[in-house]
Amino acid sequence: MAPVDDSTLRQLLDDLVAGRTSADEVVARLSRLPFAEVDGASVDHHRALRQGMPEAVYGPGKMPEQCASIVGELLAHGTGPVLVTRVTPEQVKAVEAVAGPGLRRAGCLLYRAPGPARAGDVLVVTAGTSDSAVADECVLTLEAYGFSPRRLDDVGVAGLHRLLAHLDQVTSADAVVVIAGMEGALASVVGGLCAAPVIAVPTSTGYGASFAGATTVLAMLASCASGITVVGIDNGFGAACAVARMLR
Amino acid sequence: MAPVDDSTLRQLLDDLVAGRTSADEVVARLSRLPFAEVDGASVDHHRALRQGMPEAVYGPGKMPEQCASIVGELLAHGTGPVLVTRVTPEQVKAVEAVAGPGLRRAGCLLYRAPGPARAGDVLVVTAGTSDSAVADECVLTLEAYGFSPRRLDDVGVAGLHRLLAHLDQVTSADAVVVIAGMEGALASVVGGLCAAPVIAVPTSTGYGASFAGATTVLAMLASCASGITVVGIDNGFGAACAVARMLR
Amino acid sequence: MAPVDDSTLRQLLDDLVAGRTSADEVVARLSRLPFAEVDGASVDHHRALRQGMPEAVYGPGKMPEQCASIVGELLAHGTGPVLVTRVTPEQVKAVEAVAGPGLRRAGCLLYRAPGPARAGDVLVVTAGTSDSAVADECVLTLEAYGFSPRRLDDVGVAGLHRLLAHLDQVTSADAVVVIAGMEGALASVVGGLCAAPVIAVPTSTGYGASFAGATTVLAMLASCASGITVVGIDNGFGAACAVARMLR
Amino acid sequence: MAPVDDSTLRQLLDDLVAGRTSADEVVARLSRLPFAEVDGASVDHHRALRQGMPEAVYGPGKMPEQCASIVGELLAHGTGPVLVTRVTPEQVKAVEAVAGPGLRRAGCLLYRAPGPARAGDVLVVTAGTSDSAVADECVLTLEAYGFSPRRLDDVGVAGLHRLLAHLDQVTSADAVVVIAGMEGALASVVGGLCAAPVIAVPTSTGYGASFAGATTVLAMLASCASGITVVGIDNGFGAACAVARMLR
Amino acid sequence: MAPVDDSTLRQLLDDLVAGRTSADEVVARLSRLPFAEVDGASVDHHRALRQGMPEAVYGPGKMPEQCASIVGELLAHGTGPVLVTRVTPEQVKAVEAVAGPGLRRAGCLLYRAPGPARAGDVLVVTAGTSDSAVADECVLTLEAYGFSPRRLDDVGVAGLHRLLAHLDQVTSADAVVVIAGMEGALASVVGGLCAAPVIAVPTSTGYGASFAGATTVLAMLASCASGITVVGIDNGFGAACAVARMLR
Amino acid sequence: MAPVDDSTLRQLLDDLVAGRTSADEVVARLSRLPFAEVDGASVDHHRALRQGMPEAVYGPGKMPEQCASIVGELLAHGTGPVLVTRVTPEQVKAVEAVAGPGLRRAGCLLYRAPGPARAGDVLVVTAGTSDSAVADECVLTLEAYGFSPRRLDDVGVAGLHRLLAHLDQVTSADAVVVIAGMEGALASVVGGLCAAPVIAVPTSTGYGASFAGATTVLAMLASCASGITVVGIDNGFGAACAVARMLR
Amino acid sequence: MAPVDDSTLRQLLDDLVAGRTSADEVVARLSRLPFAEVDGASVDHHRALRQGMPEAVYGPGKMPEQCASIVGELLAHGTGPVLVTRVTPEQVKAVEAVAGPGLRRAGCLLYRAPGPARAGDVLVVTAGTSDSAVADECVLTLEAYGFSPRRLDDVGVAGLHRLLAHLDQVTSADAVVVIAGMEGALASVVGGLCAAPVIAVPTSTGYGASFAGATTVLAMLASCASGITVVGIDNGFGAACAVARMLR
Amino acid sequence: MAPVDDSTLRQLLDDLVAGRTSADEVVARLSRLPFAEVDGASVDHHRALRQGMPEAVYGPGKMPEQCASIVGELLAHGTGPVLVTRVTPEQVKAVEAVAGPGLRRAGCLLYRAPGPARAGDVLVVTAGTSDSAVADECVLTLEAYGFSPRRLDDVGVAGLHRLLAHLDQVTSADAVVVIAGMEGALASVVGGLCAAPVIAVPTSTGYGASFAGATTVLAMLASCASGITVVGIDNGFGAACAVARMLR
Repeated sequence: MAPVDDSTLRQLLDDLVAGRTSADEVVARLSRLPFAEVDGASVDHHRALRQGMPEAVYGPGKMPEQCASIVGELLAHGTGPVLVTRVTPEQVKAVEAVAGPGLRRAGCLLYRAPGPARAGDVLVVTAGTSDSAVADECVLTLEAYGFSPRRLDDVGVAGLHRLLAHLDQVTSADAVVVIAGMEGALASVVGGLCAAPVIAVPTSTGYGASFAGATTVLAMLASCASGITVVGIDNGFGAACAVARMLR
Repeated sequence: MAPVDDSTLRQLLDDLVAGRTSADEVVARLSRLPFAEVDGASVDHHRALRQGMPEAVYGPGKMPEQCASIVGELLAHGTGPVLVTRVTPEQVKAVEAVAGPGLRRAGCLLYRAPGPARAGDVLVVTAGTSDSAVADECVLTLEAYGFSPRRLDDVGVAGLHRLLAHLDQVTSADAVVVIAGMEGALASVVGGLCAAPVIAVPTSTGYGASFAGATTVLAMLASCASGITVVGIDNGFGAACAVARMLR
Repeated sequence: MAPVDDSTLRQLLDDLVAGRTSADEVVARLSRLPFAEVDGASVDHHRALRQGMPEAVYGPGKMPEQCASIVGELLAHGTGPVLVTRVTPEQVKAVEAVAGPGLRRAGCLLYRAPGPARAGDVLVVTAGTSDSAVADECVLTLEAYGFSPRRLDDVGVAGLHRLLAHLDQVTSADAVVVIAGMEGALASVVGGLCAAPVIAVPTSTGYGASFAGATTVLAMLASCASGITVVGIDNGFGAACAVARMLR
Repeated sequence: MAPVDDSTLRQLLDDLVAGRTSADEVVARLSRLPFAEVDGASVDHHRALRQGMPEAVYGPGKMPEQCASIVGELLAHGTGPVLVTRVTPEQVKAVEAVAGPGLRRAGCLLYRAPGPARAGDVLVVTAGTSDSAVADECVLTLEAYGFSPRRLDDVGVAGLHRLLAHLDQVTSADAVVVIAGMEGALASVVGGLCAAPVIAVPTSTGYGASFAGATTVLAMLASCASGITVVGIDNGFGAACAVARMLR
Repeated sequence: MAPVDDSTLRQLLDDLVAGRTSADEVVARLSRLPFAEVDGASVDHHRALRQGMPEAVYGPGKMPEQCASIVGELLAHGTGPVLVTRVTPEQVKAVEAVAGPGLRRAGCLLYRAPGPARAGDVLVVTAGTSDSAVADECVLTLEAYGFSPRRLDDVGVAGLHRLLAHLDQVTSADAVVVIAGMEGALASVVGGLCAAPVIAVPTSTGYGASFAGATTVLAMLASCASGITVVGIDNGFGAACAVARMLR
Repeated sequence: MAPVDDSTLRQLLDDLVAGRTSADEVVARLSRLPFAEVDGASVDHHRALRQGMPEAVYGPGKMPEQCASIVGELLAHGTGPVLVTRVTPEQVKAVEAVAGPGLRRAGCLLYRAPGPARAGDVLVVTAGTSDSAVADECVLTLEAYGFSPRRLDDVGVAGLHRLLAHLDQVTSADAVVVIAGMEGALASVVGGLCAAPVIAVPTSTGYGASFAGATTVLAMLASCASGITVVGIDNGFGAACAVARMLR
Repeated sequence: MAPVDDSTLRQLLDDLVAGRTSADEVVARLSRLPFAEVDGASVDHHRALRQGMPEAVYGPGKMPEQCASIVGELLAHGTGPVLVTRVTPEQVKAVEAVAGPGLRRAGCLLYRAPGPARAGDVLVVTAGTSDSAVADECVLTLEAYGFSPRRLDDVGVAGLHRLLAHLDQVTSADAVVVIAGMEGALASVVGGLCAAPVIAVPTSTGYGASFAGATTVLAMLASCASGITVVGIDNGFGAACAVARMLR
Repeated sequence: MAPVDDSTLRQLLDDLVAGRTSADEVVARLSRLPFAEVDGASVDHHRALRQGMPEAVYGPGKMPEQCASIVGELLAHGTGPVLVTRVTPEQVKAVEAVAGPGLRRAGCLLYRAPGPARAGDVLVVTAGTSDSAVADECVLTLEAYGFSPRRLDDVGVAGLHRLLAHLDQVTSADAVVVIAGMEGALASVVGGLCAAPVIAVPTSTGYGASFAGATTVLAMLASCASGITVVGIDNGFGAACAVARMLR
């Protein structure tokens, strides 16, 4: 039985009692409704319906045909944006053969991008130019959600004045995504400067002793600024989802 | 020079031009205003003013007299709640000698707790009874912020029905704090069940291969549920601060 | 809604259709049945009912009164053995005040131990005398399940003849639990000698470079013997549960 | 001297006493029987004979000619299935030049696959489509053992209803292999839902903070569900062998 | 507002009071002066001005056009050396298309290298020939700063006499950069032999158990020689910057 | 043979040729001069003579009588300060029984502290009050060297204005020691603000995910500010020695 | 069947053929001879007989009575030295109650120490006074083997002349045990100075970034000096055993 | 001054006194003799002279011309074998252009291999066929030293009888090199079976949880067999050097 809330269950049961449906039907509906099985994947329509999220497909490790089947299913049975992240050229080719040309940007493939519509002033900040790819993924995902994020690039703490020059943007945002590699200090500094939620994204682009982001993610978790939260390494998509949860 | 926003700076400069203040005065005010130096600590009034946060003092590593000086300073020059976390008996004694009896709960010492006043339905969920102490710290901090959090205890995923029985609480909350040790799977499950922000707090109480929370924190960061964010190990205070940022 | 199987759900729904129960009642029963909430814990009767397991309570991190409440609930509403593992003297005192004297052994407290009844020849092997405490916990848990395990102690691979002298016991067992610290080589050797399931339990008792079991657990996972499985460090209880799953 | 059991040894000694064999012959037989030395490898016929296992060859690191020699030896002196795992195209070419065309599937090369014959309802569950390759290796190995495993794909805990919709398959299986990357939470959830043995296989396909499976394997070992056991990262073959040990 | 020192701020304010500038102008200048925004990067003129450093661009992760834009900006608005480190052929091509031919050496691209002019006897020591590339980057950076460093190669501690033969160079230098992989013992030995600052640079070129420099960097930090300091793995550029800070 | 420089060696050899000493004598002197063997320790007079350092004894792991013997030897044959760091009460008692009362401060025992005499403006900065003990050890060691360090406490980056208010101190210092736990971001920020050498000292006092300083030390090594150098965890003594090397 | 060599087996078989023994007897002897089972331990007489080693008992984790039983068994059925390492006062008491007073030294308890008799010039070198306890255990074990080791203390590489002054001892030894914490550089230096076997023993006594010996052991394994071998952290006993293997 | 022993120094000094040499000459000779500087490398003749070792050059990280210069220098001024390990085709080409054709085997290039001449029965044992490359390097190095090692392949502990069949070889060897990946259990088993020195070589070829040899090296260091020593991962060359030190 599936994670439907009590009121939905009660409605189903009331329908059953009223003879509007049968017990077999109820069992069938509860088990079958929220997802579809295509080509070895269980496509989750439920999540998008419930959360207003775009449908998202994580590319790595999937066969091109699988990607195509999943995207086809999502486009056929939904109406919102569909996003494939970290997509390979082979996957793009297979998907576009099924679904027609999509928007290729930021290593992603996007269908049915909404115009900007969702309220909320989101600021995406990077510490260095090497963090751009992760920021691109984050921005595109935010746009798929309907946000119109602003962006502040290359303002790492080694040249603090670059950040401080844009202080008003930092303090006025409704949510700030801080994307940084190396020691990730920018997250702490931003966290101390503003009262909005700060989502820290460690990147794997550093060197010296950053160990592909392992140092960065731990440093961000150990941040001295209270109330900062952290997502996984290079996870620009996840940070955008976190923003969407916060600014519903 | 301090992180004041441009409009404040402009006001100061206008005052200067108008002869309402002197250049020396401006330099002095900018440098001195936002904090006070007492007993080897730089007490930050600024944060509380700007962010509506309670004043918080992290106990470990501070001399009892330092705690007392800092709390005294905070009570003298502010009007909101003052919270000392992970406080030792010696620190309690020193602080109370200066500030009078406070509320001792959850390993903390609290002064001027507000009545519940802040909107927002916050749910604090624990995976096991061993996670209680961290949850207690989180709940008390939330209360100091003016929230009236609800709590759902001992609903780890090994007995999934315990969580599902309270599904309506999970899906209706404005923010969910998930506190778990071991493999931290509860955060992923809750993240998949609701659309609100989920703040995952790894705890150090596990065994087997949880390595005092190191496994747990990494597992939560690698969660398969999109948009979950994570704070440091045992950091119930930090999770509460993150909630406060999100539900301003 | 809880993880009941389809036939149970269907029965409930049939009862509902037949008027033998109401929709409200069904929702209530589904949500409430499988566990009880006592003193901040959600006591899981369901697991024991479904799996024929003894009721088990992991001691560390629980308040003595919590232990007592949980054990009381388990004894009141079940009929099988109740086991508290890694129990402290304070917890023993609190539990026995509520539940009367239990069997104290192997760092545990056991109520209603069954006589040996369950089929299956289980062999518990240790590499050294330092691994005894973990083996004790495993053996007691197996006995609570109704097994009568045999035991082979101090047969680490540095003196291979000690193991080989008991080769017949190793090859004839239905399941072998191998408990070892240091490099854990005994698990690989036993795995190569027998065809039965081998559950490897790394212990934290080593020195040199075993890092409190971290090396051992990884070494066992990297074992060159096919089909060995591993549980967490010092987890004698978990190994016994794994055996119970395998020899149903 | 080899790990033969006492009764075999005794038989040999009785033959010696009865003059049916000589002391030299006994030494020779004991030393030579259970394996054959070909091309730098010691091919172990013994294991297959004793355990009813298919003969298995791990491909990586072996020269193509070595693979061919080993497979040739195994086919010449045994009658059961012969499986080469993670085989390269060069190895396939060399082996097939010696042994004729085999079955190429799941990154493996299989000779003399048995028809389904072995009792036992084995369920192979994956958390995501990225875990498919490991599941494929597991399924093929199970089939080489004579099992007819069922499969449940892409049912990770972020969309819990996908798993719960197939709850009956989970609860009725004789053994469940759970294959998951990221935080590996699916193993804990499945472990809480069924009473059969659960073998958890961490995969290296995650991102964020899964560190090529290191986080996943530790998280699975720290699982809050009792009696789960774990094999090495991506070790679908090993999980199948573990199942074969359990369902003899 | 930017990290200008008080006297600069005071001067600006005095200018304001005297009517030599306006409040809007002051805000504008403070925010805009120290850097320039080009092609997604915030080019920091400030650092070079303040610290006498060459302008440096870290190549990895930057698009070739970004490199070209940044170098162009730096050459247009400064007069000192401009250095691009760890530059790819594509980046070289793009930069030279904009800026004309530079000096290609040590994996870097350098414009406007100064003749040797800065006082200070700097010695760059390597433990093995595998450490040469890091030493080359360090030496080139030092030369861009105006130093004329000496170099001592392949004098690792396994053949101590090679170092001791050049003892006078070691003891007379004003600063010593020690570049070593493996266990990094050379840093400790040099630190014990001289009184000058010793900057240890761990390299990733070792094998055995050096884990791409992780062991080396920790070993150097744990050095038994007092007062040694360490920079990140392979960070020859950083070591040169550290020398420049020390020998101002 | 010992690390004497060539001129010393040449003098010895000249004396030998001139008949002013014998070959046996030369061998003896070269081997025996620079240190003394007392109570299982080799007391190194050489270092202090050559480097102008105070004699220093690291307390942990030494028997109280050993400490006393070493201090006695150092006081008897030298004239400069003698410092015992991280000294236990038992060690203090044993040393003072031999050497009379010393100055007890900062967990150290100091004899013959010099008056401030050495040029150089050294600033010791801490991120939080928990870093005080390490700063105390650093300051005392600097004083033993003859410096008069200034100190700036509790100016972590979460409240950036506290640091910026003292910007002139930061930019004017000849060397800055930055002592911080948690993510260590203060080192990067200070490194970006000043041109002087910055020595970063990670402390073990953090929580969340700082793992007793392991995260902090790696984060500091991965700092985005060029030319920062790092010493070991909690090594305030080592940072002071590094300053002494830099400001000779 | 046990690891006896072929000639022993052949002798047994010849005896059997000749009627000097029975098949049952042979099986019994082979299985039972090399060890004795006392109080949960399998006491290995075999090792001492075969290798000329002293009987050794590792204390930690053993119950005092177990220690006493094992030592009693060893003294009763052997004639060589018996050594209990890292023994607690409770264990000493229990053992001496059974076996009479032993020699208490270096954290060990020794019975029947041989006079010096074994050829071989063994040198035990420590880097610092903190390494003494490990050296003591090593020296006592060597003496139990019959060696008369020499010792060179506190000659770490930060004061290289201390080691070089004793260069003749280093170059003339038949085996050198190097005991060091911190970065363990002494092992590399000694390895470069002599041609004899060098056994490196990392100790857990360092600080800064030595992580209780983890850094040290990896650094020693990554040593740039060829042919050095390493034992586990603090394993002075193991190093002595390694020497005994080398100087048979 | 170099690590020459006292007698050499005394001879030089005696020559000086007798007028057979000058002080300048002594300084010059001491500094220059033991090595030669060619093409950025300090070629160490000293080691080979003193230790009877072949001259060895570690290939990785060296420019082809550097390799050629070093080998040329070694062949010109020595008479023993010269070995280049882990050599690339480019390095082979450059070296052979200078030095003529060498023996290419085991990833190495060897000049002037001696006929077998050195006493000592050395056994090189591998756990699996994947360990062959490391064993090849070890065997070739041993042959360059003049040993005639025997070899025992693919005798990992999962099929213990393969090892036991060759027990006489194991027990009679003068030194045993055990080369294994995965959990490295073979080293412990061999260590328990023989009294000779056992040098364990962890390999990086495992999978599951061996983390490129990191698990293996730690497991070998934590071995339960006393007196085993360990070298770095894949370091077949180092193991051969260790044997040469032990069997001088």
